[in-house]
Amino acid sequence: MSSSAPAPSHLAFVPFVSVENMMALVHRIGIDTFLRELADYLEADFKRWPEFDKTPRIAAHSAEGVIELMPTSDSSLYGFKYVNGHPKNMKEGLQTVTAFGMLADVSSGYPTLLSEMTILTALRTAATSAMAARHLAPANSRTMAIIGNGAQSEFQAIAFRELVGIRALRLYDIDRTASEKCARNLAGMGFDITICDTIEVAVEDADIITTVTADKQCATILTDNMVGAGVHINAVGGDCPGKTELHRDILLRSSIFVEYPSQTRIEGEIQQLPEDHPVTELWEVIAGKTAGRTGKSQITLFDSVGFAIEDFSALRYVRDKLEETGLFEKLDMVADPDDPRDLFGMLQRSKMAVAS
Amino acid sequence: MSSSAPAPSHLAFVPFVSVENMMALVHRIGIDTFLRELADYLEADFKRWPEFDKTPRIAAHSAEGVIELMPTSDSSLYGFKYVNGHPKNMKEGLQTVTAFGMLADVSSGYPTLLSEMTILTALRTAATSAMAARHLAPANSRTMAIIGNGAQSEFQAIAFRELVGIRALRLYDIDRTASEKCARNLAGMGFDITICDTIEVAVEDADIITTVTADKQCATILTDNMVGAGVHINAVGGDCPGKTELHRDILLRSSIFVEYPSQTRIEGEIQQLPEDHPVTELWEVIAGKTAGRTGKSQITLFDSVGFAIEDFSALRYVRDKLEETGLFEKLDMVADPDDPRDLFGMLQRSKMAVAS
Repeated sequence: MSSSAPAPSHLAFVPFVSVENMMALVHRIGIDTFLRELADYLEADFKRWPEFDKTPRIAAHSAEGVIELMPTSDSSLYGFKYVNGHPKNMKEGLQTVTAFGMLADVSSGYPTLLSEMTILTALRTAATSAMAARHLAPANSRTMAIIGNGAQSEFQAIAFRELVGIRALRLYDIDRTASEKCARNLAGMGFDITICDTIEVAVEDADIITTVTADKQCATILTDNMVGAGVHINAVGGDCPGKTELHRDILLRSSIFVEYPSQTRIEGEIQQLPEDHPVTELWEVIAGKTAGRTGKSQITLFDSVGFAIEDFSALRYVRDKLEETGLFEKLDMVADPDDPRDLFGMLQRSKMAVAS
Repeated sequence: MSSSAPAPSHLAFVPFVSVENMMALVHRIGIDTFLRELADYLEADFKRWPEFDKTPRIAAHSAEGVIELMPTSDSSLYGFKYVNGHPKNMKEGLQTVTAFGMLADVSSGYPTLLSEMTILTALRTAATSAMAARHLAPANSRTMAIIGNGAQSEFQAIAFRELVGIRALRLYDIDRTASEKCARNLAGMGFDITICDTIEVAVEDADIITTVTADKQCATILTDNMVGAGVHINAVGGDCPGKTELHRDILLRSSIFVEYPSQTRIEGEIQQLPEDHPVTELWEVIAGKTAGRTGKSQITLFDSVGFAIEDFSALRYVRDKLEETGLFEKLDMVADPDDPRDLFGMLQRSKMAVAS
């Protein structure tokens, strides 16, 4: 473009965090600190939950998977995430879940951040699980079983170490090489890691059971007899219609905590239960309005499906880290003519600028 | 990044069309050809309307404006647009409407295109209006009144010249400098242009009346007495709840054509009418299932609000032009580890690559 072309205003450029810059940001901050600070952002937003515009995500289902848009906003900031879920991708060497998201200014509608969210979603999912467990898991939990050792497993492990104090991991996956991959990735991080041959063995003596499998079907990863009194279950993998991980009998013995009931009743483990089965909204626990765990023998269940406000918190955290780190590019994404009524004139002048 | 870092696969990079590249693309193709070819893409998708997943757009309303997500998909391609509408922006030197959009592969969920859509929306709105008029306006229409001479007006003029044969323009805006800007931008393009002092004068002898004002309120741009028999009304500006341009009596005299009834009844001129007032879906006319204009004295009204499929068509057109023009960048937007279960391993290895 010729230098005679009018320079776009700063609002025309949207900060963009690429995959490479997201990875650099995590390393710059340190993944432990990142997860702790992210959990603080999540807690702050859960505490002001009623301030948000909330809607169940908008899903486009196909035979092979689902593509979803997850918007939310408060009075000043709007955010949404694009995310897919395609279990068959893994066999083709692709990610089951990929995502990106953005923030925009409510008062002008102008985008203010675009970011990769495949990595960021993994971090926010783990941070949300650990934040919930901080309020729901037995005091002094040290041992966690992780059933399903795919892309989310290491993030869960580190978040629970940082936020809950987990030291011992009991890994199980239907494919033992996934467990070995998880153990290898977490080596030297202070965990006592056991790869288990069966789910029964994995959950033995676990204070917390995390289920994070990826099949798009009603599976029964945990049966009733596997779950002892006092355990906290962090059910992450059952997160869309027709996709569950827990036997119904477990749900009937548990105190169930959810993010956004009208979404969870469609997507979560509780899709197996009647519409009026009592559940507690997690934000009420975080905000101190309702008790979390109330007894030693109580089974607590965080029936996690992921909600838009968690992505909003994560994007807000990333945005607040950009200025100090400089780990972003600027995208020429918003047409911004000098005279806002003169979009066509801007287009015409760009032709002259190219020609000159 | 060190050269020892594993190279991401081609799927990790999403083609991105910036504002600058969109303008260059329009000039490379020529705006006349762009609008004609875009109308062909629109017609092709309107003809197969039943094949699409359709949902009213998801709107977040605030005191100052609205932010919307507009998704749709067919069996192989998913698309959505982010778009805002903030009438007060203009006074602050900002665009009333800004937009961007994307396409993704339904079978994998991976994004395949990200594009600016502020300029593209202006083009698709004009092309859609002109496509509708090709089926609804009086034969041999030569004169069009344009009420509201802001950012959309020139695009409407050129699309109607190319697709309908409009030669004479009668411009009216509450702010005369907007009409002067429009006339100046269209000078030398073969139009006979008259700037009018009143709406009454502007609509005199017009074959087509295009209303494209931007106020977020129920306005009465056209009253019943202004609209003579046989006219086609292209109502573009009334496009959200509480925002209309036409007096109700005009609607009662008109044959009304809409994009997607359940959205138009909320957002269009017909929000003034009972829920069961008869309307015709434009796609049925385009597909030859229903007649468009049936008589010389009939008043036809295209109550346009903009629908997701139009953005889908526009994105599809842009995507098909990228390979031959090369007018795009590649964004590092999708995390794509060698082993899809090993997102964490990719993150760890990126640290080593930076350190090495």
